[in-house]
Amino acid sequence: MYRMIGAALIALAAALLIGPRLIRYLKKLHFGQTIYELGPSHQQKQGTPVMGGLMMAAGILLGSLICHPGKWDGIWDFVFPLLLVSFLSMAVGFADDYIKAVKKRHDGLSPWQKIAGQVIVSLGFSLYCYYSPRVGSAIRIPFTGAEWDLGIFYIPLMTLLVIFIVNSSNLQDGLDGLLGTVTAISSSAWAVICMILVVVSELTGRENPASGTATIGVFAMSMAGGCIGFLRFNRYPAKTFMGDTGSMLLGGGTVAMAMLLRMPLLLLLIFFTPIMSSVSVILQRYYYKLTHGKRIFLMSPIHHHFEKKGYTETQIVSMYAGITLLLSLIAVLGVCQSI
Amino acid sequence: MYRMIGAALIALAAALLIGPRLIRYLKKLHFGQTIYELGPSHQQKQGTPVMGGLMMAAGILLGSLICHPGKWDGIWDFVFPLLLVSFLSMAVGFADDYIKAVKKRHDGLSPWQKIAGQVIVSLGFSLYCYYSPRVGSAIRIPFTGAEWDLGIFYIPLMTLLVIFIVNSSNLQDGLDGLLGTVTAISSSAWAVICMILVVVSELTGRENPASGTATIGVFAMSMAGGCIGFLRFNRYPAKTFMGDTGSMLLGGGTVAMAMLLRMPLLLLLIFFTPIMSSVSVILQRYYYKLTHGKRIFLMSPIHHHFEKKGYTETQIVSMYAGITLLLSLIAVLGVCQSI
Repeated sequence: MYRMIGAALIALAAALLIGPRLIRYLKKLHFGQTIYELGPSHQQKQGTPVMGGLMMAAGILLGSLICHPGKWDGIWDFVFPLLLVSFLSMAVGFADDYIKAVKKRHDGLSPWQKIAGQVIVSLGFSLYCYYSPRVGSAIRIPFTGAEWDLGIFYIPLMTLLVIFIVNSSNLQDGLDGLLGTVTAISSSAWAVICMILVVVSELTGRENPASGTATIGVFAMSMAGGCIGFLRFNRYPAKTFMGDTGSMLLGGGTVAMAMLLRMPLLLLLIFFTPIMSSVSVILQRYYYKLTHGKRIFLMSPIHHHFEKKGYTETQIVSMYAGITLLLSLIAVLGVCQSI
Repeated sequence: MYRMIGAALIALAAALLIGPRLIRYLKKLHFGQTIYELGPSHQQKQGTPVMGGLMMAAGILLGSLICHPGKWDGIWDFVFPLLLVSFLSMAVGFADDYIKAVKKRHDGLSPWQKIAGQVIVSLGFSLYCYYSPRVGSAIRIPFTGAEWDLGIFYIPLMTLLVIFIVNSSNLQDGLDGLLGTVTAISSSAWAVICMILVVVSELTGRENPASGTATIGVFAMSMAGGCIGFLRFNRYPAKTFMGDTGSMLLGGGTVAMAMLLRMPLLLLLIFFTPIMSSVSVILQRYYYKLTHGKRIFLMSPIHHHFEKKGYTETQIVSMYAGITLLLSLIAVLGVCQSI
């Protein structure tokens, strides 16, 4: 398990070291073309380079490859799927960011292009999990030892889940340090859950994908380390934004961990605040349509509602962090209860 | 273990509900007498009522008493010692705050009165642990299964430890939301450690003070919940400060948990940043004396050094939170390794 510590420290160091260079490079990339097109509203934040999420990507990649606990022939088990899902999700976001920020076309990818990319990734991953002897179609019910076999429905449900979580994560990324802080905490929760599963499988010798769990733990720790490093540059006032690049990476990585651990239901607790962001957008839209023009929230996603209510960015981040921490503790307890 | 969830939620709710009333009451208490004596420097923060820590105290008390897992005849085992240490530590801080804020005597308690109070609490608690059949003079070495029997030296060493940690906690309490955030995370780490110990003792049936561990877990969760609730009012810009009342409560509670779990060494990781605050003050003072007037830090405790370097309060809080989260993960892993 010491590899988990290594992964977190490597990811942290990578993000911190790459950060300043990356920001300088991204600024150059932006400024060649942007400066003419400043909009009237978000002027003070214009010029902040997007795609800072790449520094987390570097951290996660280095951390989880260098500290991968298995042998190389076992690398297909969990580390490749994890990296593939998160990096392919990131690729969709990256394409969008790149077109918007560098090519200066405000529309980015078309919604259909985005969804198509996400469907390919999520369907592929759901099929992988369904057919993997280590995962399968049964999911664990937290707080009980029970499992729930979804059968063939696993595939469409999980495909939707991946898309939902990746976009939730994307929607939450709207305030300095918000998604980074929430994901630092949620990844820590996944890491702790992996530690517990490893200890329990060592103690009981029960059939439990121990090397796989350790791999997920290493990945979770590198995500936590990468987020903490990234926050160095992203906390208010942000020097860089993670962009769709970063938010889809984090969303993809999070949902992949949840599915490989067969604990997608725990996302409701651990990843509650990003899910809430999505739900607030959906509620707002339907309510608006239903009532022909009334709104539930002053603005959606819900963090902008709080902003309009007069909370500062750092207050909202602190609130979301508190909620995530508390729900993560409950989730960890749920895992302990189910053993 | 469900009681742990209850404890966290009760403490959170208590802090949130009591908060506004307490702040109004404290403001009244202050304003009768203060307004004449405003100093020139911290003027913008003057008027912010101190002793907001009382809302955490209420949360911790309610949470850990209502959700206490043992039977009433077992209450002496762990919950009373925990509450006694934290609340007696708080009493020393409260006396100081009260004299300063309400009686308007700037000197508060004399240093000797403070130290005397702390020595009584810490010596008493060290003796309790030394003679308790459930604790004793051996401490666990993290990352290994080994124990280290301190023998009779346990008493003076732990007496010093309690005083050191309570004062470290007190020294760190200098920025809006700083100690509250750090302690929310560190208490969560203790809660997770307790969950792991409970699961392991259930699985192995190994001799392990399970009901005691569960009690500490309940206490840890109510501390985490209380801190998260308190941050609602204490995050930047703070509506109230916890005061010595709060910081000594949190320090006392933290060190008491560590000692009852026989893991005082883990404080070096989990409570690293408060310890760093103390150490920075000590280094600064000795370096100043040694060099006849030179300084290592622009100002000590070290968070003021960062402030002078141009970091904002919220940036420093975010940095300390990241460090604490990462070190707490390592500590939890250390506990897993030692099983």
